[in-house]
Amino acid sequence: MSIDLLEIKNKIRKINDFPKKGILFYDITTVLNSPEHLKFIIDEMAKKVVGLDFDLIICPESRGFIFGVPLSYKLNKGFVPARKPGKLPYTSVSKPYALEYGTNSIEIHIDAIKPNQKVLIVDDLLATGGTYKVLAELIEEVGGKVTGFLSFIELKNLDGRKNLVGYGNILSLIEF
Amino acid sequence: MSIDLLEIKNKIRKINDFPKKGILFYDITTVLNSPEHLKFIIDEMAKKVVGLDFDLIICPESRGFIFGVPLSYKLNKGFVPARKPGKLPYTSVSKPYALEYGTNSIEIHIDAIKPNQKVLIVDDLLATGGTYKVLAELIEEVGGKVTGFLSFIELKNLDGRKNLVGYGNILSLIEF
Repeated sequence: MSIDLLEIKNKIRKINDFPKKGILFYDITTVLNSPEHLKFIIDEMAKKVVGLDFDLIICPESRGFIFGVPLSYKLNKGFVPARKPGKLPYTSVSKPYALEYGTNSIEIHIDAIKPNQKVLIVDDLLATGGTYKVLAELIEEVGGKVTGFLSFIELKNLDGRKNLVGYGNILSLIEF
Repeated sequence: MSIDLLEIKNKIRKINDFPKKGILFYDITTVLNSPEHLKFIIDEMAKKVVGLDFDLIICPESRGFIFGVPLSYKLNKGFVPARKPGKLPYTSVSKPYALEYGTNSIEIHIDAIKPNQKVLIVDDLLATGGTYKVLAELIEEVGGKVTGFLSFIELKNLDGRKNLVGYGNILSLIEF
């Protein structure tokens, strides 16, 4: 039986009250450890960006890397990691952001993107859009252009899209 | 001109005194942001494990994910993330490992590996081998078998291999 998006949605494990009370957490490890499901997810995410013009994929650590690096490999794009403070060894630019639960900062190297390179931002989850928005701002700050956003999962009820208007395409593979 | 391993070694940026004085840090972001170099690295790492029998690739966050997920995708294996404490939502097993000052811990889900599944451990760097060794112990604790270790970079002078004897193949793409 071939895999479809409904099967992926069902196979993702739902965990109540993680990381804090009232949050329903979507545990993607239950699809990643199956070769067929991992392959299906990456191939379907790649199809979402067919026709989009971009040079680089940038992802926030660490779950973003899970989707962004195989997509970079498959689509022949460069990969740029966005990391938590203190992790990148070279001169970096940094911005704080609000999460669905808590706050943090994220950094990219000042030379990560060449002037006018086009960047697709990839992450596991579009929730409030806070991480995506600061990453888009950082990309523009170092001279890049944002082509759009690609998420494995989009949480529709949080309406993160409203924070990303004007930055390009907002794409996701599955919705909850 | 085609890419070779010497070019990869030269293109990796060397940064002195990061993250602390006396450490020479190998900054891999300068090869990852080039599509051709990223593709070369993943393809060459894949060649290193041709003929090895394994079902899953497990990687410590977050730099391990950069190599382990595209290899899982390319080689049709499942991917299992090993994470820092408090990040995995389901019941996990955890082990501490020694750092230069103090200790850290790493965790995997108790159901990440099915009994007797064979696991390749992938990371960016083989230094002292401390992370690899605790991951191998965790894999055996949950019923898996360790096929071996595959690193992008091996730091020869730290002789991490001596800590990994008896666990299978110890492979790396480039050495410093």
